[in-house]
Amino acid sequence: MTTRARKTRSSARRKPAPLAVRRERGVKYVYLFDEARLAGRAAGSRDGVRGLLGGKGANLAEMAKLKLPVPPGFIVTTEACKAFLAAGDRFPKGMWQQVLAAVDGLQRATGRKFGDPDNPLLVSCRSGAKFSMPGMMDTVLNIGLNDDVAAGLTRATGDERFVFDAYRRLLQMYGTVVLGVPDEPFERLLAEYRTRRGIWNDAELPAEDLRAITGEFKRVVETQARCPFPMDPLEQLQLATMAVFRSWHGKRAHDYRRAAGIPHDLGTAVNIVTMVFGNLGADSGTGVATTRNVTTGENRLEGDFLMNAQGEDVVAGTRLTLPIAELARAMPHVDRELRRIARVLEKHYREVQDVEFTIERGKLWMLQTRDAKRTAQAAIRIAVELAGEKLISKEEAVRRVAPEHVDYFLHPQLDAAARTTARDHGALIATGLNVSPGAAIGQIVFDADTAEHWAQQLKKTVILVRPETKPDDVHGMLAAQGVVTSRGGRTSHAALVARQFGKPAVVGVLLLEVDVERRQMRTATGRVLKEGDWLSIDGTSGEVFAGELKTVVPDVTDPYFTELLSWADRFRRLGVWANADYPRDAERARRFGAEGIGLCRTEHMFFEAERLPIVQSMILASTAEERAEHLAKLLPMQRADFIGLFKAMDGLPVTIRLIDPPLHEFLPGRDGLQKAVTELETRVRLKDGDPAALQVELQSKRKMLDAVEAMHEQNPMLGLRGVRLGIHMPEIVRMQVRAIFEAACACARQGVKLKPKIMIPLAATSSELEVGRALLEDEARTVLKEQGVKVPYQFGTMIEVPRAALVADHIAEFAEFFSFGTNDLTQTTFGISRDDAETGFLSEYLQKGILVQNPFAIIDRSGVGYLMELGVKLGRKRRKNLEIGICGEHGGDPASIAFCHQIGLDYVSCSPFRVPVARLAAAHAALGEMTDQR
Amino acid sequence: MTTRARKTRSSARRKPAPLAVRRERGVKYVYLFDEARLAGRAAGSRDGVRGLLGGKGANLAEMAKLKLPVPPGFIVTTEACKAFLAAGDRFPKGMWQQVLAAVDGLQRATGRKFGDPDNPLLVSCRSGAKFSMPGMMDTVLNIGLNDDVAAGLTRATGDERFVFDAYRRLLQMYGTVVLGVPDEPFERLLAEYRTRRGIWNDAELPAEDLRAITGEFKRVVETQARCPFPMDPLEQLQLATMAVFRSWHGKRAHDYRRAAGIPHDLGTAVNIVTMVFGNLGADSGTGVATTRNVTTGENRLEGDFLMNAQGEDVVAGTRLTLPIAELARAMPHVDRELRRIARVLEKHYREVQDVEFTIERGKLWMLQTRDAKRTAQAAIRIAVELAGEKLISKEEAVRRVAPEHVDYFLHPQLDAAARTTARDHGALIATGLNVSPGAAIGQIVFDADTAEHWAQQLKKTVILVRPETKPDDVHGMLAAQGVVTSRGGRTSHAALVARQFGKPAVVGVLLLEVDVERRQMRTATGRVLKEGDWLSIDGTSGEVFAGELKTVVPDVTDPYFTELLSWADRFRRLGVWANADYPRDAERARRFGAEGIGLCRTEHMFFEAERLPIVQSMILASTAEERAEHLAKLLPMQRADFIGLFKAMDGLPVTIRLIDPPLHEFLPGRDGLQKAVTELETRVRLKDGDPAALQVELQSKRKMLDAVEAMHEQNPMLGLRGVRLGIHMPEIVRMQVRAIFEAACACARQGVKLKPKIMIPLAATSSELEVGRALLEDEARTVLKEQGVKVPYQFGTMIEVPRAALVADHIAEFAEFFSFGTNDLTQTTFGISRDDAETGFLSEYLQKGILVQNPFAIIDRSGVGYLMELGVKLGRKRRKNLEIGICGEHGGDPASIAFCHQIGLDYVSCSPFRVPVARLAAAHAALGEMTDQR
Repeated sequence: MTTRARKTRSSARRKPAPLAVRRERGVKYVYLFDEARLAGRAAGSRDGVRGLLGGKGANLAEMAKLKLPVPPGFIVTTEACKAFLAAGDRFPKGMWQQVLAAVDGLQRATGRKFGDPDNPLLVSCRSGAKFSMPGMMDTVLNIGLNDDVAAGLTRATGDERFVFDAYRRLLQMYGTVVLGVPDEPFERLLAEYRTRRGIWNDAELPAEDLRAITGEFKRVVETQARCPFPMDPLEQLQLATMAVFRSWHGKRAHDYRRAAGIPHDLGTAVNIVTMVFGNLGADSGTGVATTRNVTTGENRLEGDFLMNAQGEDVVAGTRLTLPIAELARAMPHVDRELRRIARVLEKHYREVQDVEFTIERGKLWMLQTRDAKRTAQAAIRIAVELAGEKLISKEEAVRRVAPEHVDYFLHPQLDAAARTTARDHGALIATGLNVSPGAAIGQIVFDADTAEHWAQQLKKTVILVRPETKPDDVHGMLAAQGVVTSRGGRTSHAALVARQFGKPAVVGVLLLEVDVERRQMRTATGRVLKEGDWLSIDGTSGEVFAGELKTVVPDVTDPYFTELLSWADRFRRLGVWANADYPRDAERARRFGAEGIGLCRTEHMFFEAERLPIVQSMILASTAEERAEHLAKLLPMQRADFIGLFKAMDGLPVTIRLIDPPLHEFLPGRDGLQKAVTELETRVRLKDGDPAALQVELQSKRKMLDAVEAMHEQNPMLGLRGVRLGIHMPEIVRMQVRAIFEAACACARQGVKLKPKIMIPLAATSSELEVGRALLEDEARTVLKEQGVKVPYQFGTMIEVPRAALVADHIAEFAEFFSFGTNDLTQTTFGISRDDAETGFLSEYLQKGILVQNPFAIIDRSGVGYLMELGVKLGRKRRKNLEIGICGEHGGDPASIAFCHQIGLDYVSCSPFRVPVARLAAAHAALGEMTDQR
Repeated sequence: MTTRARKTRSSARRKPAPLAVRRERGVKYVYLFDEARLAGRAAGSRDGVRGLLGGKGANLAEMAKLKLPVPPGFIVTTEACKAFLAAGDRFPKGMWQQVLAAVDGLQRATGRKFGDPDNPLLVSCRSGAKFSMPGMMDTVLNIGLNDDVAAGLTRATGDERFVFDAYRRLLQMYGTVVLGVPDEPFERLLAEYRTRRGIWNDAELPAEDLRAITGEFKRVVETQARCPFPMDPLEQLQLATMAVFRSWHGKRAHDYRRAAGIPHDLGTAVNIVTMVFGNLGADSGTGVATTRNVTTGENRLEGDFLMNAQGEDVVAGTRLTLPIAELARAMPHVDRELRRIARVLEKHYREVQDVEFTIERGKLWMLQTRDAKRTAQAAIRIAVELAGEKLISKEEAVRRVAPEHVDYFLHPQLDAAARTTARDHGALIATGLNVSPGAAIGQIVFDADTAEHWAQQLKKTVILVRPETKPDDVHGMLAAQGVVTSRGGRTSHAALVARQFGKPAVVGVLLLEVDVERRQMRTATGRVLKEGDWLSIDGTSGEVFAGELKTVVPDVTDPYFTELLSWADRFRRLGVWANADYPRDAERARRFGAEGIGLCRTEHMFFEAERLPIVQSMILASTAEERAEHLAKLLPMQRADFIGLFKAMDGLPVTIRLIDPPLHEFLPGRDGLQKAVTELETRVRLKDGDPAALQVELQSKRKMLDAVEAMHEQNPMLGLRGVRLGIHMPEIVRMQVRAIFEAACACARQGVKLKPKIMIPLAATSSELEVGRALLEDEARTVLKEQGVKVPYQFGTMIEVPRAALVADHIAEFAEFFSFGTNDLTQTTFGISRDDAETGFLSEYLQKGILVQNPFAIIDRSGVGYLMELGVKLGRKRRKNLEIGICGEHGGDPASIAFCHQIGLDYVSCSPFRVPVARLAAAHAALGEMTDQR
């Protein structure tokens, strides 16, 4: 250790200190696109460059390096932003001089000049953080326009419409972004002009209107912001840069970062790029594309474009776009060039790219490239195919698929029959773009706040329906099951965010008329759905149905999915088992790749309709004989259950947990009985009905109530359950053990290979286990002797109260395996009753940030995790080969799986549907992927 | 460390290996009384000798060494017993030969011979373990008698009555102890003869009857045990020795050891002693004495004796004894000799002794000496006076008083006024011997099983009333509040056991006629009390009252008590604080020596009659304004509470815990409301009463029920309480903090010295504390600024869920002190709801030995203790001077206090009545006394 530490220190010493170098030269805050190498040296690595220049800036510089057609531009670094914010919104020393120098560079490169009416330089000013935060921060386009330049440009281009369209956009963006003027007066003015002309689209407004609008916009800015719009292009640029810096701390950006797990201290870079125009006529246009289909993963360029339009027209989804396939017809040479660039980019980045481009008078300009967001299905296919194309390794392919992708791939889908019926009955009210797959069912809400309120406070499941979504709507999208918008395309805000957060979404449902004010929407046939009505959407097909449709979870047959998971299996060390109570669950789990049953909750079998009365009679029995009689009836049923389970898992381990819940859970509810008794008592007193009949009924109800009362506990979670119940009423667990071993013997005779693992729940002391296990081993031996069959088996326990972990060495003396019951362990470690808290103070804690994560979803490493680690250490100290797993819900959570890997568990056990997720997460853990960085 | 370890090892090597020595010589299993020095060498130390020879044997040998008159005898060691039991009830090799040699020695010393009709040797054979277990194991007297010896002895003594009295005793003891014949046929025969003679007392039976009884007893033995009584004295001795060995594993002995915390693997020694007879006529006698009064502690020889009687007549309490003061009149030279011996023994043992003696024809023989059991009061006075006499040091005096002694000293006493009234109304039904002090109130039960059943299953408080008690009754005595026997003396079984376990007891209530079969008792005046009737007894005065009298807890003014505790205070390191909610509790605590308030539960103040309605209105308030209004009403009340508390504790710290319980605890019960609503609904439906009035009532009840329902939780222990409540509804805790600081300022202005410590309950994460504390510090600052007064204060937290202990370093960032809330910490660490479990499976666990101790009474060191130790370590790592205490009930338990000392807490806080106990226990801990060995 000491030698290694010394080595590390001395090698650190040999490294040049980058800070010192910077200080020497003065800090470099501004990089021209073709200074990418310089930035790389300053920052250290590609990720470092992204950190310094922001993702967008780094990629623009990268494209410039690849000699792709990028308009000249430069980047003001995130360092500048951080220094600006830290100094109380003041540019750091020297930064502005560097910007001015860079502007000079642009002027030289383009031959244009800021403010020159004859040959003006126009630039855009956009934010670009290390991680993409689509639409979260601000942009100002067309900087450099003023009255003189507009006049000059009109003269030079002869296109007044274009010039004033650009000018009015600058004014609106500058007004809202830089000066904080609300959008609404600008939009109202535009709407007035559209109405006057009887048109729907701003693009149809004539030049004179745009000139008039420009004038009005200048007045809006002046009136609302109480200062005139600056005519000096440099002043425009300076204030726009400041506004972009400041937008890092805007509420929207803050919320987004919290939801996406992005640190708040990264800052944003600013990209200042020479404007190119897609709205200079029929030989101009603009578009977005992904190098492969990001919904299906198909290896085909996909995207949308608009001729004679600005970029934001495509992104905002306000005009109906054309599919990229049309580009070949419209401008074949541009299409060829774009496809070539797509290939270059994919090869360079070894990843599917999402690009923005503009065609200015027939010349293609690349404005942006970034790793494309994609659906789960696409993520998997792309990863598998990229590995097939040798662009990436199989490890890399596995790493690139997020566990969430697999999860969403397994999301419910609309039931095929229900879908057909719904179609036949006219419940299919519209179809839109299938931008984020999966089915979602919920009650309609028309704004984000209502969505959040209904979902969190009223515990409703909701579908957010909007004309289109904006960054302000993200909290509502997160709260909703799914999202529908009547406008917008595949790359609209709604589509992007829904895909990223795995929310099923259908966008661009043009035939749906959404009236937010009247809280209703109207279909093409005139049908009206109001807020609170049920809606079912299919993000995979793009269909929208009225009503609450049935859903199913798909079986996994997708070949890419199967391939990827088989690769994952090669890399992981953790076993993946499933929690399954019935043979049908076990079969599904096995199909999904489960390598054993980690938890079979035997009491679930007690709740079945024909069994519950027997269970109740057994509980209420007043003598041991009576109880034995009822248990004898349950025995063959449980045996049959276990036979099914063993056969389904032939050759694999099956862990059966003995009865766990308090017995009163099997009896009728106390409240209902109390009510019935009080009612009957009152009726007896008031002589309402036949006295004899009333008495008979009253006595029967009272007897049941007395039994329930006798078992009533203040805190049943901490009561007579688990091993305590087994010790208190050993007949029940004896019956269960008998059923297990009779089943095991029957199966063994039929050649089924099996290894029952019998699990005693809720032990807090080794003595409980000693007593409980002795009792059960005795029964096991008896049955095996009766049956004359040898079956290997194990007794183990759940570690689900803190004490069990603290004395795990003693526990391991009597337990041959451990399984962490992290649900209860979390409850007891925190002192939180999950049932009560998750709808109560726990959600308040999460909202207020007192808890960053729900500990019932993701293992609390410092508390519960500490106990687990200790339990593993102590348990293995006593019993070297102790097998240890986890069967709480955390067993299916990727971050928790990573932790389980880290502390050396043997397997995780989760619900059958989480098995594929767990296989992938376990592979990530083994590959050292920090899947838990959120 | 390493050097020290090496040293220890090498010094261990230098020590001679005692086992090797023994093996060389052959194991020595038998020691004559005058071989004490030899035994000492073999065993190593005085305690070692006790371990080897048993307490009784060691003391006999010790007395022999002091040249006191001890009849010749020898001891078979505990090693022999252990070897015997381990070998399946076979004597170890060589043991019997050593016994034979020792018998030879006795014969030489006494000049008598085993089986010699003319000059027979008679011996007793008694068990004697390391720790005294009175009456728990077996004894056979008069071994050596047989038909020939009896005839010879009759000839020699001319006292046939004496000889056959001895012979029939041998037969009964041999029959029951060695051969397992029940007592009942023997007792029946004796009763028949008594009836025939019309006498009450066996001592009055004439010689002919005793001879006849001897014959019948021989037949009983032969018939019942199917083997004749052995005439060979050596066979008698051999079988009696085996029986005594075996009695170590008897159920009675087992139960006793468990209750008294004596290990099961010690084994018993056997003492074989030449018989001396107290029943050889008017110049013979027998008695027991303590060298001081063991009830009051007074320095005066106390005891009882009987003339012309055997020892067991005194111990069994079947004959009315004479006080030892009478001995001076009866036999002055014996009295002088006894007093001389008493002084020698006290000086030698530096401890009060309990001796047995026999006077055979005017010659005093000492049959036993041991440290005397004593009452709490006596223990304290004796310890203080022995220290005063310089026989022991003050440290030793403090060590000698058990915390339990102090506790029982503080036991309730009958209220003086209630006692007077009861006397005046004839409720004083009898008076007996005041053998174990304190008052006890309970329902009468007449046998031990009923006592246990009523107390444990039916949760009744009971008084066990018996004619006399036997070892079989101990479980009933433990279950009862107190014990009454109609027979028996100060040293009877009932008296000894009651004193040892601190149960108030009155014995020898001769005028009470106890009829166990008819489950009743009759007083001298003919009044009949039945099982289930209430009884109040005063073990301090010996009075027995019919009915349920009021009790009070005495104030502590006893000068010995005060003195001893002042010595204890000098030795302890732990602070002793008290849990007190009201000024009156605080005052009492201070009187008892508390050095601060460790826990003031502010919510208790909310439950007072005039406040509860305001608290309820506050909780049910529908607006913030309404709530503020009600809180404003509570503010002056809480402020007044705190002013009282601060004044009572002038100069000492006061720890105030902010509201902890869930709010629904302040509202009416859910069950009652549900019942009322159902009843009203039924009445409305059946039109029973004025519809309008019914509706009004129904609406009001429903409203309350709705509120209660809204707050209902499945597991309130783990619910919205403590800091969670404070975060959820900050107004309440703000009000409390304001009340605290307004009170503090008011007190400070009046010159009261104070240091409020504000305690936030139930934190599980540091962020809860961060948020909670910020809120409260803000309020505190505001008040202090308003008032313009400076008051030093601290914010701290309770550590009462496992997570808080696991992340104590983070918690300590925001907490200036910790207080372990071990009640809740035990609940959550074990996953046990105390309310439910203590009347349920927890008592089952304790009965079945699954838990050795109730973790709610004594800290569970391996689980809860682990967390505490970790919490202390982590907490102090973050904040070096972190003050840490405990305020759970464990703070008053000696074993737990020792643990708190050990892990370095600063103070324990307990109920005011436990403060003296805690002071002593803390001193013991500091003196390195293992007070927790149980």
